Amino acid sequence: MLSAAALAATRSTLRARAPLVHNLTSAVVANFTANALLAIGAQPAMVESAEEVTAFAAIADALVINIGSLTPARAEVMRLAITSAVAAGTPWVLDPVGAGAIGPRTAFAREFAALSPDAIRGNASEILGLVGEAGFGRGVDTGTGSEAAVDAAKRLAITTGAIVAVTGAIDYVTDGSRVVAVAHGHPMMTRVTGMGCAASAITAAVLGVEPDRLRAVAHALALTGIAGEVAARNARGPGSLMIGYLDALATGAA
Amino acid sequence: MLSAAALAATRSTLRARAPLVHNLTSAVVANFTANALLAIGAQPAMVESAEEVTAFAAIADALVINIGSLTPARAEVMRLAITSAVAAGTPWVLDPVGAGAIGPRTAFAREFAALSPDAIRGNASEILGLVGEAGFGRGVDTGTGSEAAVDAAKRLAITTGAIVAVTGAIDYVTDGSRVVAVAHGHPMMTRVTGMGCAASAITAAVLGVEPDRLRAVAHALALTGIAGEVAARNARGPGSLMIGYLDALATGAA
Amino acid sequence: MLSAAALAATRSTLRARAPLVHNLTSAVVANFTANALLAIGAQPAMVESAEEVTAFAAIADALVINIGSLTPARAEVMRLAITSAVAAGTPWVLDPVGAGAIGPRTAFAREFAALSPDAIRGNASEILGLVGEAGFGRGVDTGTGSEAAVDAAKRLAITTGAIVAVTGAIDYVTDGSRVVAVAHGHPMMTRVTGMGCAASAITAAVLGVEPDRLRAVAHALALTGIAGEVAARNARGPGSLMIGYLDALATGAA
Repeated sequence: MLSAAALAATRSTLRARAPLVHNLTSAVVANFTANALLAIGAQPAMVESAEEVTAFAAIADALVINIGSLTPARAEVMRLAITSAVAAGTPWVLDPVGAGAIGPRTAFAREFAALSPDAIRGNASEILGLVGEAGFGRGVDTGTGSEAAVDAAKRLAITTGAIVAVTGAIDYVTDGSRVVAVAHGHPMMTRVTGMGCAASAITAAVLGVEPDRLRAVAHALALTGIAGEVAARNARGPGSLMIGYLDALATGAA
Repeated sequence: MLSAAALAATRSTLRARAPLVHNLTSAVVANFTANALLAIGAQPAMVESAEEVTAFAAIADALVINIGSLTPARAEVMRLAITSAVAAGTPWVLDPVGAGAIGPRTAFAREFAALSPDAIRGNASEILGLVGEAGFGRGVDTGTGSEAAVDAAKRLAITTGAIVAVTGAIDYVTDGSRVVAVAHGHPMMTRVTGMGCAASAITAAVLGVEPDRLRAVAHALALTGIAGEVAARNARGPGSLMIGYLDALATGAA
Repeated sequence: MLSAAALAATRSTLRARAPLVHNLTSAVVANFTANALLAIGAQPAMVESAEEVTAFAAIADALVINIGSLTPARAEVMRLAITSAVAAGTPWVLDPVGAGAIGPRTAFAREFAALSPDAIRGNASEILGLVGEAGFGRGVDTGTGSEAAVDAAKRLAITTGAIVAVTGAIDYVTDGSRVVAVAHGHPMMTRVTGMGCAASAITAAVLGVEPDRLRAVAHALALTGIAGEVAARNARGPGSLMIGYLDALATGAA
């Protein structure tokens, strides 16, 4: 599923079809997310008003809901966008940033997880938080290895119908029965904000062009992980890693 | 109008006078826009509360209204800022991001275009959307060559009194009768979010120091296009292009 | 106080304890601030809803209040966060961006300064604005040398109980009686947006692990200034300086 040829084909499809990805995300990562999508060949849009999100569902190829900086007003816009996407058959991805760390956010993440996402991508603490198990995370990072959340991810996939990805040193992608391991990436990526958010956005982009959802999510994580590996070769620290990652997403050099 | 000596003079004036540019823009591009303005010698300010925008009009040298992530509350603040700028004689630039793509946004863009902007800068789809003709854009990018919107730009310049710029592989700048073509830039710039927004902000900066508006807009687009060309020479992809663009805006190396 | 060995010890402590820094800041600088915190070994969180900030105070190690893009709604959330932090004994830092330039913002900055911040970091115009003296700033930059605000900083430290830092070509840090000068940094840093904001966030991070507040603030400013110096050696302009700064914060190369 993750051969170089298969990944190259997905990359070519992304460039040829340039899926329009609607992002409802945090201001912290909005710029980096948009640049990651552009680099890999997708087309980002960050429309965020109640009036526009409904109209936008008719033309977007995929939607990302990232709860990184959530407010009640933004949550309401997210509900509208999700409703429109589900009605239109547009695939959508939930990034449950910080779920499990504090109560209000966990409640929002669980509400959204029940609204038929096509994929959910989080770290171990977030996936454990979503299913009601305690991780060791504080804030949005995680102190828990991704393998510790694989069982939780399988249960979450079954109850939500989503493909669930637990990302970490190794990423695990599951539909509730099958589990695909993606062993790409570099530890320095954890020192750049929004790397997980970019992975979620690229997941949405691939879901916009690839109907096999398990394959789509695994490919998205492999493409982003490989870009991080390529960037790490020449990086002098997290700043140059971030820039090299965008370069590598675009050039596909591996 | 676009000789190297003329552009160098504008660049020197920007550095000497350091115009204070008030930006009402999207969170997606706010950081990049501020850095582009700083790089070229201007002084950015992103004041965005209703209370502050009116007070700020008294000290700013130029205003940019970028509708990239518009909400009704933000639109109301934009109206206040525009009203203050017009009353104070402060030049202001409209960036009609995404006009033509979806209805609510097109309506806002047309409302603002009628409020006496000194310049309007958009891609072909956005300019066509503003005048009521169909482009081929989805989201904020464009599938239409800039030359297709030159006639629309001339009509828009006449009806609004603005200098109108249609940017693309070649940029066209018009006051409704004269048309100046600016043939700078690099295709990789389309893979970095906010390049158009930065061009609009730099347009405002130049309008803050150069009274000949047609010249000001053409110079701003030439300076940003040349910075992109310089950056593309050493870029390994869109990430390093973005960084090299900021470097080149500052050093003026060409 | 600022020997290489002392700074190295602070850097090691930051990495070992990875303080969780809660930032209420502007969308303009949120990404850069988060990356600066990650680079130096801290853990950023940008929680910003009224519901979440109170819950978050229980787990954060430090709080930054940056008034860079202030609205009344955001000011109300800031009050909640400050109240929770003070109640929990969590150190908090005020960055009075733009104080003194326009009236509404100066009023907010003074209100917050009276709420027992552990540290206040601003440029000369902002510190002068806080104590009611006229600087020469327009917008958020300053036309006043930092030494011109040392007396104002001492008075502000006495009236607020905060350690006050005036940053500029030389940074001055005072508790109202002692004054520590920090002579690090590079002029090109003024051409990158958010450098002051990042310094404030790193100040909060060090306050989260170092109980001697005067030492904590001076160390934070030295670490960020040194990172700028290191970056300037290889920078071709402000873009590559920004990236090199993040790299240098992480590697500690000097």
